[in-house]
Amino acid sequence: MIPIAAFVGKSNSGKTTLIEKVIGELTRRKYRVVSIKHTLHAFEIDHEGKDTWHHRKAGAVMTMISSPAQIAVIESVARDYSIEELCRRFVTEADIVLVEGHKETKSPKVEVSASESIDDLLCLEDEQLIAIACDTHLGLHVPCYPRHRGDLFADLIEQRFLKGT
Amino acid sequence: MIPIAAFVGKSNSGKTTLIEKVIGELTRRKYRVVSIKHTLHAFEIDHEGKDTWHHRKAGAVMTMISSPAQIAVIESVARDYSIEELCRRFVTEADIVLVEGHKETKSPKVEVSASESIDDLLCLEDEQLIAIACDTHLGLHVPCYPRHRGDLFADLIEQRFLKGT
Repeated sequence: MIPIAAFVGKSNSGKTTLIEKVIGELTRRKYRVVSIKHTLHAFEIDHEGKDTWHHRKAGAVMTMISSPAQIAVIESVARDYSIEELCRRFVTEADIVLVEGHKETKSPKVEVSASESIDDLLCLEDEQLIAIACDTHLGLHVPCYPRHRGDLFADLIEQRFLKGT
Repeated sequence: MIPIAAFVGKSNSGKTTLIEKVIGELTRRKYRVVSIKHTLHAFEIDHEGKDTWHHRKAGAVMTMISSPAQIAVIESVARDYSIEELCRRFVTEADIVLVEGHKETKSPKVEVSASESIDDLLCLEDEQLIAIACDTHLGLHVPCYPRHRGDLFADLIEQRFLKGT
């Protein structure tokens, strides 16, 4: 099973900015990173007027576009899939899966917080919490690094999940 | 194995318009249609500035976005996948897979032609050719229907691949 680490936190806590840095750092270290963004909202990923957009609009339950360099798949589903299900279904080759969102996941997680207060944390009681990204040092039982230090979170993930692979 | 029918033909022959009609028609008849667009060109399916776009840009080899209604996957690949490989890898539940492009596929195919001449056909010698979409009746060994008659191509696909499923 490919290891999974989730970056969770409130809206506008800086999750995307941090995960982007961690992806970049691990990619530079030659790991193959898969990322998963979880959202409860509807999203539009295709461009109006494109062929694939026409296929979807006509009713296709799944549309793919395939080229020698890239494959994209858009599928209608009837329920929210867990991260583990998504990985089993779609991920074949990767060293690490980084997730943005999905704080209910049972995977190890980093909480990203823009607040200076412990009281604002969502996952303090979560046994899967492995670190906190916060610009104030909170003095907790898990490592706490500033949100802009993608390198330190990459170190942590590398040490914990990737050494020896 | 889920049946596959490919719509092939030269650029601007009207493939997308026809396949869109066929998808719509088969969807109205309660079939679950998967569509695959094949291209040799680079494509951009995500929107600049979106979270998933940031993940890809940072180097993720695969990025997913998942919601309770829709899943999208964008993956970098090192070679052109065959339709059969794409189906095995990604398609779990469907009644029919309709493909746009990929005239080299060994799957049954419909050639779409904007020309009035037999000489312009690409797949006349192809054993997998099952019909032609052309606005001039060419008098060949396979059915030839006008390009706007998505219903007739849906009938053909239903008769050939879906009756009894």
